[in-house]
Amino acid sequence: MGSTTGEFKRDANYIDTRITADGRDGYPVEPGRYRLVVARACPWANRAIIVRRLLGLESVLSMGICGPTHDERSWTFDLDPGGRDPVLGIERIQEAYFKRFPDYPRGITVPAIVDVPSGAVVTNDYKQITLDLSTEWTAYHRAGAPELYPEKLRGEIDEVAELVYRDVNNGVYRCGFASSQEAYETAYGALFARLDWLSDRLAGQRYLVGDTITEADVRLFTTLARFDAVYHGHFKCNRQKLAELPVLWAYARDLFQTPGFGDTTDFVQIKSHYYEVHRTINPSGIVPVGPDLSGWLEPHGRAALGGRPFGDGTPPGPPSAAEVVPAGHGAGVDPVDGIDGRDGGFEGG
Amino acid sequence: MGSTTGEFKRDANYIDTRITADGRDGYPVEPGRYRLVVARACPWANRAIIVRRLLGLESVLSMGICGPTHDERSWTFDLDPGGRDPVLGIERIQEAYFKRFPDYPRGITVPAIVDVPSGAVVTNDYKQITLDLSTEWTAYHRAGAPELYPEKLRGEIDEVAELVYRDVNNGVYRCGFASSQEAYETAYGALFARLDWLSDRLAGQRYLVGDTITEADVRLFTTLARFDAVYHGHFKCNRQKLAELPVLWAYARDLFQTPGFGDTTDFVQIKSHYYEVHRTINPSGIVPVGPDLSGWLEPHGRAALGGRPFGDGTPPGPPSAAEVVPAGHGAGVDPVDGIDGRDGGFEGG
Repeated sequence: MGSTTGEFKRDANYIDTRITADGRDGYPVEPGRYRLVVARACPWANRAIIVRRLLGLESVLSMGICGPTHDERSWTFDLDPGGRDPVLGIERIQEAYFKRFPDYPRGITVPAIVDVPSGAVVTNDYKQITLDLSTEWTAYHRAGAPELYPEKLRGEIDEVAELVYRDVNNGVYRCGFASSQEAYETAYGALFARLDWLSDRLAGQRYLVGDTITEADVRLFTTLARFDAVYHGHFKCNRQKLAELPVLWAYARDLFQTPGFGDTTDFVQIKSHYYEVHRTINPSGIVPVGPDLSGWLEPHGRAALGGRPFGDGTPPGPPSAAEVVPAGHGAGVDPVDGIDGRDGGFEGG
Repeated sequence: MGSTTGEFKRDANYIDTRITADGRDGYPVEPGRYRLVVARACPWANRAIIVRRLLGLESVLSMGICGPTHDERSWTFDLDPGGRDPVLGIERIQEAYFKRFPDYPRGITVPAIVDVPSGAVVTNDYKQITLDLSTEWTAYHRAGAPELYPEKLRGEIDEVAELVYRDVNNGVYRCGFASSQEAYETAYGALFARLDWLSDRLAGQRYLVGDTITEADVRLFTTLARFDAVYHGHFKCNRQKLAELPVLWAYARDLFQTPGFGDTTDFVQIKSHYYEVHRTINPSGIVPVGPDLSGWLEPHGRAALGGRPFGDGTPPGPPSAAEVVPAGHGAGVDPVDGIDGRDGGFEGG
């Protein structure tokens, strides 16, 4: 952040050590050795939560969950008993960064993967993390895991994901954290032009690339899931709500109702994070009550476009009890049987 | 503002001197003597702009227009050549308040009516101002002026208007300026409960009270006109957009497309005012580009409910050239013939 033009600049330097099958960076794929640290609020971390779940890596890669709010020292384990992650034994993910680099100068971010024996962060390179879960952890994928980054589509996935990153994933931040009217308007123009482009692309095809869910869909979804709840008002991305863009809204609902997407989305933590942490743009810290989220559970009609969500694979089963999004944090709750939208219907799998 | 519970309290003490037909407060109705000072941005002032125009009082009660933004010394005539009101010769409406009461201790607000010969504010009691335009200035109403406050409906108009004031007109401010989560949530609950109540009431009848436009409609309209442009995001009134509440949205469009309503609505000034002036809730002062306002011009279908907008009267003609809302500040512009939505169709008159 901070430039002479008022433009928001994301620090795109991450710890780019990789966990690979061959262990060439010193961190081989190994069941039980690593812990994925996330915050449900964070769209970049939410990608990793989704991919881990779609691939069925829960039993080999454990997950620590930071709370939605934090101070300038970044994410904490305040949701855990005693405020400490039960596996890492730390209060702040910052500690694991400092274990790796005592003078770590950059942003303390999630997702981060921690090497449990040493307690040190291996990587926080969120773009590579999900790709490596797909391509390096294959020996531990569940039976029926989808191919989220199939070799023959990588060029197209990378290309689409880069445009979506620039104009949408990061574009909403460029709107919200612009410090000049001009920088904001430039970001807003690029955001909605890209959403229109996406609407055109998705009008006749069910998923972004090919006919199955890929990494490209995961990346777009976590921004769309936060759009009306946060970005529309808090970041002034307000030409329309997502709910007013028919194609994208149906596309987002389709994914939301697919196991692994909506069932990892915690709207309460999402709103809490953005509105309580960003005091420079919301000084009161008051969190809006709205929007009404029940629309996420409405029929999306996208199955008519064809497509095979999991390709030759199958959807994942329900999340483990320890990793279920708390009741009332999803898109709707049925008070009679306790089932809410996170368990919503799966079409066409 | 400012209470121990975080609740927003509006100072409801106004200068309650009245301009009456009999002149009992020392200020008799008299053509050319007074100047109505407004800001198009302000919902309370917008009421007076609408009523003056519906009643055809333009030629007997002139109008001075303050710009949308101001500092702590309140509204200024910065839109006028040299930054001075051409009739009053002052830069700030504050000067006219001090002419009346040199130590005036309360808020400097619009609408205000100024006695031109003395240069002193007569009244800023916005609730009474519009009622007096309807009931005290009758000798100067245009031919075909509607009865906005008919005697037989006053009880019902007052009752509805009081609920609308508490929960909607002022309710949006109670949401936006709450300084505690609890106070905000209380105001939000009351606001949307009242909007639901209004939707029920308006589902089967075209106007709020009786079958013609009344003061009650004017009062509700100026808040609805600002809802999606400002209150939804800036004041966190975000259960739904107005555009997502079908009955109220059609009701608001119906009024918007009626001469006197939409043609007095300046969305650019409205957004500029709220987002630039309220730095405590929008520190950057950045004004959102959205929302897309073209929906205001879409057919509303409310004529099917019956009703006679102007009763036995007629709609007003177009605004005078000096009082036309600037091109591009309305809901849409037709670049071909320069006619925008402010001149939009009038149904059923």
